[in-house]
Order: sequence, then C-alpha cells, then structure tokens
Amino acid sequence: MSSSPSIITCKAAVAWGAGQPLVIEEVEVSPPQPQEIRIKVVATSLCGSDVNAWEFRNIFPRIFGHEAAGIVESVGEGVTEFKEGDHVLTLFMGECKRCRHCTSNKSNMCQALGWDRNGVMHSDQKTRFSIRGLPIYHYLGVSSFSEYAVVHSGCAAKVSPTVPLEKICILSCGVATGLGAAWNVADVSEGSTVAIFGLGTVGLSVAQGAKLRGASQVIGVDINPGKGEKVKDFGVNVFLNPKDYDEPIHEVIKRMTDGGADYCFECTGDTRVASTALQSCCDGWGMTVALGVPKANPEMTVHYGLLLTGRTLRGSAFGGWRPKSDMPSLVDMYLNKEIQVDEFVTHNLQFEEINRAFEMMKKGKCLRCVIHMPK
Amino acid sequence: MSSSPSIITCKAAVAWGAGQPLVIEEVEVSPPQPQEIRIKVVATSLCGSDVNAWEFRNIFPRIFGHEAAGIVESVGEGVTEFKEGDHVLTLFMGECKRCRHCTSNKSNMCQALGWDRNGVMHSDQKTRFSIRGLPIYHYLGVSSFSEYAVVHSGCAAKVSPTVPLEKICILSCGVATGLGAAWNVADVSEGSTVAIFGLGTVGLSVAQGAKLRGASQVIGVDINPGKGEKVKDFGVNVFLNPKDYDEPIHEVIKRMTDGGADYCFECTGDTRVASTALQSCCDGWGMTVALGVPKANPEMTVHYGLLLTGRTLRGSAFGGWRPKSDMPSLVDMYLNKEIQVDEFVTHNLQFEEINRAFEMMKKGKCLRCVIHMPK
Ligand SMILES: NC(=O)c1ccc[n+]([C@@H]2O[C@H](COP(=O)([O-])OP(=O)(O)OC[C@H]3O[C@@H](n4cnc5c(N)ncnc54)[C@H](O)[C@@H]3O)[C@@H](O)[C@H]2O)c1
Ligand SMILES: NC(=O)c1ccc[n+]([C@@H]2O[C@H](COP(=O)([O-])OP(=O)(O)OC[C@H]3O[C@@H](n4cnc5c(N)ncnc54)[C@H](O)[C@@H]3O)[C@@H](O)[C@H]2O)c1
Ligand SMILES: [Zn+2]
Ligand SMILES: [Zn+2]
Repeated sequence: MSSSPSIITCKAAVAWGAGQPLVIEEVEVSPPQPQEIRIKVVATSLCGSDVNAWEFRNIFPRIFGHEAAGIVESVGEGVTEFKEGDHVLTLFMGECKRCRHCTSNKSNMCQALGWDRNGVMHSDQKTRFSIRGLPIYHYLGVSSFSEYAVVHSGCAAKVSPTVPLEKICILSCGVATGLGAAWNVADVSEGSTVAIFGLGTVGLSVAQGAKLRGASQVIGVDINPGKGEKVKDFGVNVFLNPKDYDEPIHEVIKRMTDGGADYCFECTGDTRVASTALQSCCDGWGMTVALGVPKANPEMTVHYGLLLTGRTLRGSAFGGWRPKSDMPSLVDMYLNKEIQVDEFVTHNLQFEEINRAFEMMKKGKCLRCVIHMPK
Repeated sequence: MSSSPSIITCKAAVAWGAGQPLVIEEVEVSPPQPQEIRIKVVATSLCGSDVNAWEFRNIFPRIFGHEAAGIVESVGEGVTEFKEGDHVLTLFMGECKRCRHCTSNKSNMCQALGWDRNGVMHSDQKTRFSIRGLPIYHYLGVSSFSEYAVVHSGCAAKVSPTVPLEKICILSCGVATGLGAAWNVADVSEGSTVAIFGLGTVGLSVAQGAKLRGASQVIGVDINPGKGEKVKDFGVNVFLNPKDYDEPIHEVIKRMTDGGADYCFECTGDTRVASTALQSCCDGWGMTVALGVPKANPEMTVHYGLLLTGRTLRGSAFGGWRPKSDMPSLVDMYLNKEIQVDEFVTHNLQFEEINRAFEMMKKGKCLRCVIHMPK
C-alpha cells in the first residue's frame, strides 16, 4: 500500500452542459479517502444511461462513464481488500455487505453504496474531481471517462490479471443488467415466450439470457429499423418494428404468443413502452420487467385491469445482481465462453474520439463502443 | 337428475339503474342449459364489488350478488358432477380444468369461465333471467340476489351438507380473496411488515392471512374512522387514518417500518391508493398487491423509480385461488377453526331488506351483511 497518495493531474472528458460535446480537460483527482480506491482506467464503454444523463439531466460539470475496468493505482485508509496493481471492474452500485439490504439476501439496493443520483461520493457528499478548485461531479459513483477515477472500495470487484480488461468492461453494467433481468428478476423458464422492447446492449443481453434459459420464442421490438439485422445472433427470433404496423404492437405480440408473452422487458427508457410491455404479456402469470431509465417522464400508466387479471410488474437495477458478490461468477462465465460479451463491442475508439461514441449511441449506430484510455 | 327442468318464476332483487334502490320483482329463471346448474340460493352476502358495480357500471337491468351458497335444484344436460340436493358455494370465476390456464398450475384465469364483464352467461352470451321477455343481466356469472340462480357447473364448488350455508357464503369471494392475496399472491413471510389499504372484508382478510403467517407488524389504513375499533380482532396492530396526518401517509408508514413495508395491499378500489401503496413498500423486495376493483379511473400512475429500485406490483383476482380446486380446503380450514369467517358477518338481514344492506355497505357501516333468502 503506497502510504500517502497525492493529487493526480490527468485528462478527463468533462460534460459542461446537457447534450454539449464533452471537452477533454486537465482535471485534478484527489487521493482516495478512507475506504476508497483510485483506479487507472484501462477501458470503459458507453451505456444508454450515460447518454441519457448527458442529454436529459442537469448536474454539470460532470464526468460520465460507469462501465469500466482498470488497475488500482492507490488505496485509501482502511482498505484491505485491494492493493496497488489489482485489476478491477467498477460497479455503479456498491455492496457494503453490512446493511439491511446487503445482508437480506434478497436485495441489491445497498443502503450505504446505492445508486448515486447527486454526482457526489457516498461517504462525504463531495467530489474527488476538480478543475482549479471547481468541483466536477461524478456519475453513478464511477466517472470512468477519466484517466484516473476514485471509487468506493465497495464499488469495485477484483478480477484476475489474466482477464482482458478491454473486453470485460462492458460486463460491469449493460450485459450483466440484461442477463440478470432474464435470470434473477424474471427467472425466464424453458419453453416460454419473451418480448423485449429496445434492442440495445441491455435488451440483447436479455435476449441472450432468455435463449440460454431455453425460451421458445424471443420477440425483439425496436423503432430503429437498423436493429433488425444483427439481433438474431443474440437470440432474437422475430424482429418487430412498431412503425411497420397499423395496429398497436401489443396486439401483434398477443397474436404471435397465443394471448401474450410470458415475460416482457422494457429496455428503452421510455415509460410509455413499459405500459405497452405490460399489455403485451399474458393473463394469469405474465410478467413485465422494467429496466430502462426514463429519459423524460418518470411516471408510467398502468391499466388496473391488466394487474387484476394476474400480471406482475417488477423493476430492477443491475439485473438484480449483488454487484460485488456476483460479478466474479459472471466473469468466469465469460472466460468459460458460456456467455457472449465480445459480440456487443461494435466499435473500439481512442479516448480522444469519445464524442463520436456519444453521437453513435445517440443515433443508435452501435451497441457498445469501448473507449481505450491512454496507456 | 330431474330429466327436464322447466322455467321457474321466483323473486329477485333487480337493479334497474345505477345507484337506484333494487326492486324485488317476479322474474323468470330458465332451466339450466348444458353444463349448467340451477341453484336455490340459501344465503348470499354483499361484497364491495356488488356495490361498486351497482353505483358505477352501466349494464342494467341486472341482478347482483356473487357471494352465495345454496342447494342444487336441477342440472342441465351433461352435468355429472352435481345432482339435485347437493350443497354448493357459487364461484364468480369458474374453472373448466381444461384450458391453457386451468392446466398451467400457475393461473386462475380460466379462459372458458373467467370473470364475466358483460352480464351474460359464458356459453351462449345470453341471460337466464327475464321479466316478461325482457332479459335481465347477470353479474359475475352468479346473480345470487334471486331465489334461484343459474350458474355454469364450473362456477360452483360442492360442500358437505353439514356445513352451514348461511355462514360459508362469504368465503366464496371476500374472505377467500383476502386470504389468498396474503398467502398465494404475496406469500407473506414470518416476521415481515404489512400495510393494508382499505379495511373492509377483503382488507381484513388480508390482515388475518398475514397474522396467520406470523407477520410482525400489520398496519391498517382506512379513511373511515369507524374502522379503527374492531380491526385488531383480525390482526391489524396499528390503525392509520390518512386524514389524521398532515404528511402523506406513505411517509408515516415508511417511518414505522424502517424504510417501507415488505408487503402492501390495495383493497379500496381507488387506483390512487395503489400508487400510495407502492410508495409505502420498501426498496429491494417490497411488493404491492392490487386487489380492489376500480370504481372510476381504471388507470394508476407508477413512479418508475419505485420499480427500478426493486419493487414489484402484482394484481390478482380471487386471491390467486383456483376456485373449484382450492375452495374445499378453505371450507375445511373454516370447519377446523383455523380461519375466522363468522366474525366478518356484522349483520343478518332478510331478503326484503336488501336495500338496507346496500346502503350500509356504501356507507361503510358493516363488514358483511348476510341476506337470508326465503325458505
Ligand atoms: N436498470 C438498470 O440497472 C440499467 C442498467 C443499464 C442500462 N439501463 C437502461 O436501459 C436502457 C437501455 O440501455 P442500452 O445501453 O441498451 O441503450 P441503447 O440506447 O443502446 O438501446 C436502447 C434501444 O431502445 C430503442 N428504443 C428507443 N425508444 C423505443 C421505443 N419507443 N420502442 C422501441 N424501441 C425503442 C432504441 O432504438 C435502442 O435500440 C437505457 O434506458 C438505460 O439507461 C438500466
Ligand atoms: N380482486 C378480487 O378478486 C376482488 C374480490 C373481492 C372484492 N374485490 C374488491 O376489493 C375491494 C374491497 O372489497 P370489500 O368488500 O372489502 O369492500 P368494502 O367497501 O367493505 O371495503 C373498502 C374499504 O376501503 C376503504 N377506503 C375507500 N377509499 C379509501 C381510501 N382512499 N383510503 C383508504 N381506505 C379507503 C373504505 O372506507 C372501506 O372500509 C373492492 O374494490 C372490491 O371490488 C376484489
Ligand atoms: Zn449495503
Ligand atoms: Zn379453464
């Protein structure tokens, strides 16, 4: 353990305002505080959540990025789990392993290190980034669009140094979220029918999860016609673009599935789609899982009759995985080639090209762009 | 089996328009059609659903009543399960035991004999009641506010002749629905916290179910201050009237339960209450069960953030019981004094007094009024 880490000055992609191109700035990164670690980011990808928060939220200046892998540069007081040189995946939701939720065995909503919404660190509600004294806000407790990032030690999972960091970074949010939604949250059963709304990395990871569970039919719905081509590789059997139909898409799905799908998943970030998903699942046992993070209106409308006839609407973050406890097994599945991960990486870019990645995500031209940080 | 039953003329309480006092009329009751049975109703009680449909729906003239017990008077062609003289409970949702849902083992939404919404019989979309040729509509396939009623043989459960019909009639909807919501739908666990919105027979049956499962705290919420007194007998530990608080009631509940109840139940028929219930349950694993049948606006608003942080919203009809298969075991539980049923009967009235029962239900002056039909 290096005894007293000092401030690092490095490059970070700073978002100064909603939807404005990021600017690569020199930022100061404080030493890790007690229980924190500072990471040299090796590779980081863009998730739909980064892009939505960049376009639609109002906490600025901010450094986005939360799907990342890197190497521990220094550790703060009291950290015993990590040491300089460890390879890690970042976790946008942490696990303290002590609170009511962490010890419940039925929740991943750690009360100490949960989903950050205010752009500050969990422990002291301050930032670790600044530019000449001006605080630069964090995103989801990670902020990996920076050469160095400080995260709570509960927000990182150690991985073997043999694991390729530039590949597994995308496991740390999108892919894991989708697989977990299919496996942990919906618990998709063999022979069942599945409809997935939104075929980004999250939705296609749901498809992969459903396929691996032996679903008999996986319907993928997206308004981007370009999505129709590649989705079969991930397990989607039928692609539907609502714009191609005169009737509501839930009617089409109900017809294809003899009354409604067993499981529906909303992976778009549009709450109106969640209402449609609920209409697309069947009486009696149909379940809709909400995963998308609303871009705009955070309220959805639920027709009560859909509930009374036996449907379930369930939400989840990070696919229900307990991030620190469960991540190692997902990494193992990747290494054993039990799950597809590399296939989601459609683009590899250098850090300087990060704005291209934001544009491609916004326009739906990619699945995951991995950003390779300077060596 | 009496070979060819003929039309019966008898007394029935007919609702001629929304909210108008019922009129006891002479009605003609057709013979049971194939697979149907005709029942002499012995006792029938009023459920919140009868009162709401009477006040807020527009199918008239109609005969309400769906919690009932009686004796088979005659059977239609092809009925082998029942014979004249059998004692039965009516079922407002039937079970054909053959359709995709009945054979699924995970649904009580029989596709052949499900929840009727149009006031006609399942088999031929016609009515079995008339007054001088004018069809009188059914309610939920039962219409027990009549001396004789025709139901599908899949909408009745045989009970032993030793069971007191005037007691168990209320098992056939309200009490079973509440117990089933706690047991089958939410699966309330020992030591958990529960909040119930609406303390009629349905809500108090949820309370009873939760108590029997060993819930550590059962909070009952009702806007009728008169409900505060007797509810402890059914398992409610704390009574809350939202009108007594300046702050929203979900804040009060969250404080009392360390962040939100494990399970919430909406038993009022007001969809705004369902939104409140969802806000009153906890992150991570909190579940809200929707049971009330909306009086007016059938849409509810769900704040998406409540879902993404791990909550589940689930609805159910008849507490998830498969009506025909599961009813006998509930009757046994009553006979073995494992569940309270008699305690819900606050009033016993003669058929002629049925309008008093409607008024009392409407004003929240009773739990269940049992109507005793002429001998
Ligand atoms: N709950 C979680 O833990 C969690 C984790 C990661 C991402 N997310 C959220 O999941 C969503 C998907 O993430 P992603 O990285 O796959 O994003 P993405 O942008 O790659 O994919 C979203 C897809 O939805 C499609 N879409 C948009 N509106 C649609 C509509 N009305 N109907 C059908 N399809 C529509 C888009 O065309 C796109 O293909 C985002 O909202 C993101 O914020 C949630
Ligand atoms: N899902 C099913 O299968 C099923 C079966 C039976 C009844 N129901 C429905 O369940 C509901 C309850 O039935 P019941 O027979 O107990 O009715 P009830 O009228 O006896 O009880 C309803 C209770 O809700 C209370 N209430 C009304 N508005 C409220 C509010 N805003 N906040 C708090 N409390 C409020 C009333 O004061 C009353 O005590 C009804 O909507 C009925 O239609 C559903
Ligand atoms: Zn925790
Ligand atoms: Zn059936």
